[in-house]
Amino acid sequence: MQLFYTPDITPSQSHCQLSEEESKHAIRVLRMVAGDALQLIDGKGGFYEAVVQDPHPKRTLLQITAQQQEYQKRNHYLHIAIAPTKNIERTEWFLEKATEIGIDEITLIICQRSERKEANIERLNKIITSAIKQSVKAYHPVLNKALAFNQFVNTKFEGQKFIAHCEEGEKFNLRDVLQPRGKSLILIGPEGDFSPTEIDRALQNGYKAITLGTSRLRTETAALEACFEVNFLNR
Amino acid sequence: MQLFYTPDITPSQSHCQLSEEESKHAIRVLRMVAGDALQLIDGKGGFYEAVVQDPHPKRTLLQITAQQQEYQKRNHYLHIAIAPTKNIERTEWFLEKATEIGIDEITLIICQRSERKEANIERLNKIITSAIKQSVKAYHPVLNKALAFNQFVNTKFEGQKFIAHCEEGEKFNLRDVLQPRGKSLILIGPEGDFSPTEIDRALQNGYKAITLGTSRLRTETAALEACFEVNFLNR
Repeated sequence: MQLFYTPDITPSQSHCQLSEEESKHAIRVLRMVAGDALQLIDGKGGFYEAVVQDPHPKRTLLQITAQQQEYQKRNHYLHIAIAPTKNIERTEWFLEKATEIGIDEITLIICQRSERKEANIERLNKIITSAIKQSVKAYHPVLNKALAFNQFVNTKFEGQKFIAHCEEGEKFNLRDVLQPRGKSLILIGPEGDFSPTEIDRALQNGYKAITLGTSRLRTETAALEACFEVNFLNR
Repeated sequence: MQLFYTPDITPSQSHCQLSEEESKHAIRVLRMVAGDALQLIDGKGGFYEAVVQDPHPKRTLLQITAQQQEYQKRNHYLHIAIAPTKNIERTEWFLEKATEIGIDEITLIICQRSERKEANIERLNKIITSAIKQSVKAYHPVLNKALAFNQFVNTKFEGQKFIAHCEEGEKFNLRDVLQPRGKSLILIGPEGDFSPTEIDRALQNGYKAITLGTSRLRTETAALEACFEVNFLNR
C-alpha cells in the first residue's frame, strides 16, 4: 500500500489534497487512478486511509475513508542531542536508523571539539520524513536547529538528563537508572568527545554520566546505541 | 596512537614486518621514523605494542615491546546470517556498526525473495578490518561467503538458533529466551522478508521465531537491532 506524508491534514477533514510534489509522484510515477487506495500519515500521530477521487497530477484530491489518531503512540519520550559528525552522512544514517527504532526529538549541538559547526536542517529533515514513511510511523520526530553546547546545556528539560562521554569518572548504566515510561535527554559528543569543561558543565546542570558499554563507538553509533537502549528498556 | 592490522603475527615473535601497503601508510603517509611507537592487532585476540626499528617504506620492521592475548575477549558468540541488501551500502553499514558493537561471525544468505544474489566478500571484509582498527578490537569478525538459504539452514550450529521474521505466528523476545554467555545464530531476511516456506524450514530445523519489537525495520536495521539486543543482554 502506498503511503504519503500529509502534515497539514486535520482529523475533521473528509477530503485532502496532495502537495504538488506528492501529486506528481502519485499520478505520474505510481500511475494511480480514481478509486485507488492509499494511506496517509500526518506526523502528529494521525494515520488515515483514503482513495483517489480526482487523479490530478498537480492537485490530487483524496477522500478520507478511515482514520486513527495516536497511531502506535510511543510509551516514552526520547530526545537525543548529538554533535553532527564531520562526515554528515554518518549523522544522516543515525537519523534514519533512530527514526526506525524510535525517537521523538533530536537537537544538533556544536561542541568545543566539533569539526562541523553547521548542518543543513532541511535536508536532514527530509531523511527523517523518508524514514517515517518507510517504517510507517505516524509521528514525525522533531529536528531542532543546531545550538552551541553551552547554550543547549542550560535549556530546561522536564525529565532525566544524561551525558555519554569517554572520560574517566563515575558512570551509570541506563538499565540501572532510566525510569521507564518517562522523558529522557541524552547528550552525545563529537569525534574526540566532549571536553572536560563541557562534561563538568553538564554534571553541574543535573546531567548524569552514563556508559554505553566497553566498546569504543563512533559518534553516530554511540547515539544509536543510546536510542536502542532507551527503546529496549521501555519495551 | 596509530594502530595496524597484522594478521600474520604470532605471540612468539620479537619482531614483525608490516605489509607493503601498511609500510607505505606508516612511512609515506604518517611519516613514522625509527623509535616511533605503534599498536598492532592480529584479528585473533592478540594486541601488541611495538616501535619502528627500520622505517623502510615497503618493508617496515617493528620490534614488539609488549603483548596481550585474548584482548577484550567477548563473553558470548554471535553469528548473524543476513540477506545482503539490494543497495549493498546498507549491508556495509551493518558490518561496520556490528563490528563496533560486537559480533563474531556473519554469513550472507541468498533467500527466495533476495533481489541481490551475490556480494563482493573481499570488499566487505575490508570494511570489517577498517572497523576493528577504528574501534580497537583484537578479534576480526569472520565473514563467510554467500550461501543459499536452504543450504545454510541445514548447517549444524552448536547453540541457540533464531529467525527474525515479520509473518504472523508465535514469536519470542530475545530477553526471554536468550541464554547469556552462550552461542547464538540469528537469521535476518531480505527486503520483503523470508517466504513462508523458508520460515517453516527454519522452524523445522530447530530455529525459534523472534520479534525485534513493533517497528517495521529495514533489513540492515533489523540485523543491527538483533546485534544490539544480544550484546546488551550479555553485558
